[in-house]
Amino acid sequence: MSSSDFIAALRGLSHRYWGTHPFHQRMHGGELSEHELKIWAANRWYYQCVLPQKDAAIISNCPLPEIRREWLDRIVYHDGAQAGDGGIERWLRLCTAVGLDREEVLDQRHVAPGVRFAVDAYVNFARTKPWLEAVASGLTEMFAGHLMQRRVADMLANYPWIAREDLAYFTNRIDKVSGEGKGTLDIVVRHAVTREQQEKAIAALSFKTDVLWSMLDAIERAAAKE
Amino acid sequence: MSSSDFIAALRGLSHRYWGTHPFHQRMHGGELSEHELKIWAANRWYYQCVLPQKDAAIISNCPLPEIRREWLDRIVYHDGAQAGDGGIERWLRLCTAVGLDREEVLDQRHVAPGVRFAVDAYVNFARTKPWLEAVASGLTEMFAGHLMQRRVADMLANYPWIAREDLAYFTNRIDKVSGEGKGTLDIVVRHAVTREQQEKAIAALSFKTDVLWSMLDAIERAAAKE
Repeated sequence: MSSSDFIAALRGLSHRYWGTHPFHQRMHGGELSEHELKIWAANRWYYQCVLPQKDAAIISNCPLPEIRREWLDRIVYHDGAQAGDGGIERWLRLCTAVGLDREEVLDQRHVAPGVRFAVDAYVNFARTKPWLEAVASGLTEMFAGHLMQRRVADMLANYPWIAREDLAYFTNRIDKVSGEGKGTLDIVVRHAVTREQQEKAIAALSFKTDVLWSMLDAIERAAAKE
Repeated sequence: MSSSDFIAALRGLSHRYWGTHPFHQRMHGGELSEHELKIWAANRWYYQCVLPQKDAAIISNCPLPEIRREWLDRIVYHDGAQAGDGGIERWLRLCTAVGLDREEVLDQRHVAPGVRFAVDAYVNFARTKPWLEAVASGLTEMFAGHLMQRRVADMLANYPWIAREDLAYFTNRIDKVSGEGKGTLDIVVRHAVTREQQEKAIAALSFKTDVLWSMLDAIERAAAKE
């Protein structure tokens, strides 16, 4: 298909992005309890902390130095250039803001099996699929910028104990994601040249929306338990 | 075993390092024909160009951000911070100096099956083994610094059409390797704490010496063919 049809097909998956998940809707509406926010933050930690490993798997499978060079920044973004820096640390700060001890986040005691399975499926996808499909799975970034902007505003408005600095993960990520969404799309459009590659890229993005959606399903259920 | 016994056991594998391989001995003695040098450079290219992927596999398997941060430099070292930079490019320069076209290196037409098998085994090891064993397999660096210093001197003395600038891969690598050898050993000693982990680290280094040795066996045979 033409580049524009291909891009339209990818963008057409936006309705499956977790922005519309009931749990996120309640979050934005200020309806989550402190307990639910804690369970959410502690579970999503599992996702945040494997992202560098997922990105390294993509680099490991990619024979093109120019793509490897471009992708390397993501590992640095998450892990930070030095200790105490990076996206992972910013997520830990948010965890603390919602009332979690650092220790209970790091030891993953709150991580629900369903979250673990979904996140592991994502890392496994990146390890075992061709690099182009793994890159395409990351195109959920295309849908993330707008949602994060709303999230920062809604969380500041609705959860008064959370300060703007605690949301550094999101405020920092907003710029990054708008940039990355474009760069990632460029890579996918440039390298998915056959119909089959394009369809695999669309399937990869669809798979990733399932990963994120399943995470929130499992988080919602885990948070409702107590 | 104690740290010092462990380090001694690792260093004790130095006699299996490819420094003493007959092909290397002939190289240092100035006895290789131009054809042999070409086949050597074109084959070793296959090794050089998968190193970033091998290092990314280690990062992908490592759950410790501090190790991932430290290991990331290796990918940058080989791939370069931008196009036309890095260890891979310096190896291509050496290939050109011994009379190969860039194209016949890049398309890997001279790569012998035995070299491919050995190198693939190395990458596969890094992808499938625990990160600590994969890191330990890189400890051949401990044996490399001295050999490279000798190589630069011997090649300049014995192959007059090779200039010092053409040997940038080695001159650049000498400093890097002395540093890395120490850093890598520190990681391995710090994280291999059980007897079993220590033995697996020793086995990993032994495996790596086999990889390198087999590469030279296959190169020697391929170069003798014509």
